[in-house]
Amino acid sequence: MAAYRLQKRCDEEAVFVVEGPKMAAEALASGFDIRVVCATTEWLSAHPDSTVATETYEVSPAELERLSNFKTPNQVWMLLSRPDHSSLITHHSSLTLALDRIQDPGNLGTMLRTADWFGIRHVVCSRDTVDCYNPKVVQSSMGAVFRTQVDYVDLPQWLADCGMPVYGASLQGEPLSTLHSPLSTPKVLLIGNESRGISAEAMAHVTDPVLIPNIGGTAESLNASVAAGILMHWLSS
Amino acid sequence: MAAYRLQKRCDEEAVFVVEGPKMAAEALASGFDIRVVCATTEWLSAHPDSTVATETYEVSPAELERLSNFKTPNQVWMLLSRPDHSSLITHHSSLTLALDRIQDPGNLGTMLRTADWFGIRHVVCSRDTVDCYNPKVVQSSMGAVFRTQVDYVDLPQWLADCGMPVYGASLQGEPLSTLHSPLSTPKVLLIGNESRGISAEAMAHVTDPVLIPNIGGTAESLNASVAAGILMHWLSS
Repeated sequence: MAAYRLQKRCDEEAVFVVEGPKMAAEALASGFDIRVVCATTEWLSAHPDSTVATETYEVSPAELERLSNFKTPNQVWMLLSRPDHSSLITHHSSLTLALDRIQDPGNLGTMLRTADWFGIRHVVCSRDTVDCYNPKVVQSSMGAVFRTQVDYVDLPQWLADCGMPVYGASLQGEPLSTLHSPLSTPKVLLIGNESRGISAEAMAHVTDPVLIPNIGGTAESLNASVAAGILMHWLSS
Repeated sequence: MAAYRLQKRCDEEAVFVVEGPKMAAEALASGFDIRVVCATTEWLSAHPDSTVATETYEVSPAELERLSNFKTPNQVWMLLSRPDHSSLITHHSSLTLALDRIQDPGNLGTMLRTADWFGIRHVVCSRDTVDCYNPKVVQSSMGAVFRTQVDYVDLPQWLADCGMPVYGASLQGEPLSTLHSPLSTPKVLLIGNESRGISAEAMAHVTDPVLIPNIGGTAESLNASVAAGILMHWLSS
């Protein structure tokens, strides 16, 4: 089946994979262009709206297993077109999330999910951040990737040009406990790489370095997506 | 080698696996009883303190690969005895973390890492929470599992007997933004299962239901370890 080979050609074809009933429902609701649906008889008969796809294949559980990236493939596998952001209207929300070299797909997905919770509509990533349409990112985002504009840019340049205060977590930052909640004017939260933090080039544009206080002093660091969650909450409240 | 078979007998033997140089360094510093070390020549010669182990084996990278739970096995694999908490002094900190039916090892490890950051020394889990010595928990805890007392208990009973206010995330809770920061008296933070939340039996003992405000209204939920991080920060500040 052509779809088997398509999976390896995602980059060239500008498509990405969505799996399982939960993410498939998000994909159908998203308005994204659905190119291929491979699904079990049961799923197809329960989802007449899946005919919006350019191609639809009825597959057996064994075929689904060969397509799937997951240990327990589940009813439906889809190929979607990557959105062309150049034609999208940029969303404005009071907080923009900027990500510098995030490597772990689970972390990126979790950060998109958290951003979605806090009403953040625009996420800007350095070009070497993991692809937001990686299957693990799609899954851990719980559908947030369909509701968020994610752009890959020259991050230091974007930060230099954005015209907003940039908050960044830094060990040299001000402890959150000593700071007033920030004003509700538009601002950027910058999160750095899981082990190396924010790069020097991006840090040069941080106007408000902040520190999540470490109590007790034994732990080395927080998980990047937990730190991002604490800071998104702080900046949104 | 006997160690190969030992891995399958972890439960019976009351041991658990620790892998890689970073976690091995934490294990050596922890004072935990190290039963077996399997490591490369290089790692062993750089770690003369590893002779505290009951048995030490020099292994090839290929042997390490057969032992390992990870895709990229790394220099050292250890078996440690599970601590016998009945003989440990209970740590007291102003905040205790209680976990109800957490299933994902990455989430439990991340919550232990976050607890460690916020100086929490005691974590209480329902008996059906994932094992804190699961290799993925050990890894994602970044060593916090060695610095935290983790007990598995009848959780509703423990909550009923603890004599402290119990904060729990609930969709019926008070939004954090409308609440004053809580007093610094001892208290419990209760976090529920990833998809089902806090069980009715445990919820009956929540004295302070709280809600992390959802802005914009499209996201269904937060990741459990992100929600836990936001609440640990709020209760610690």
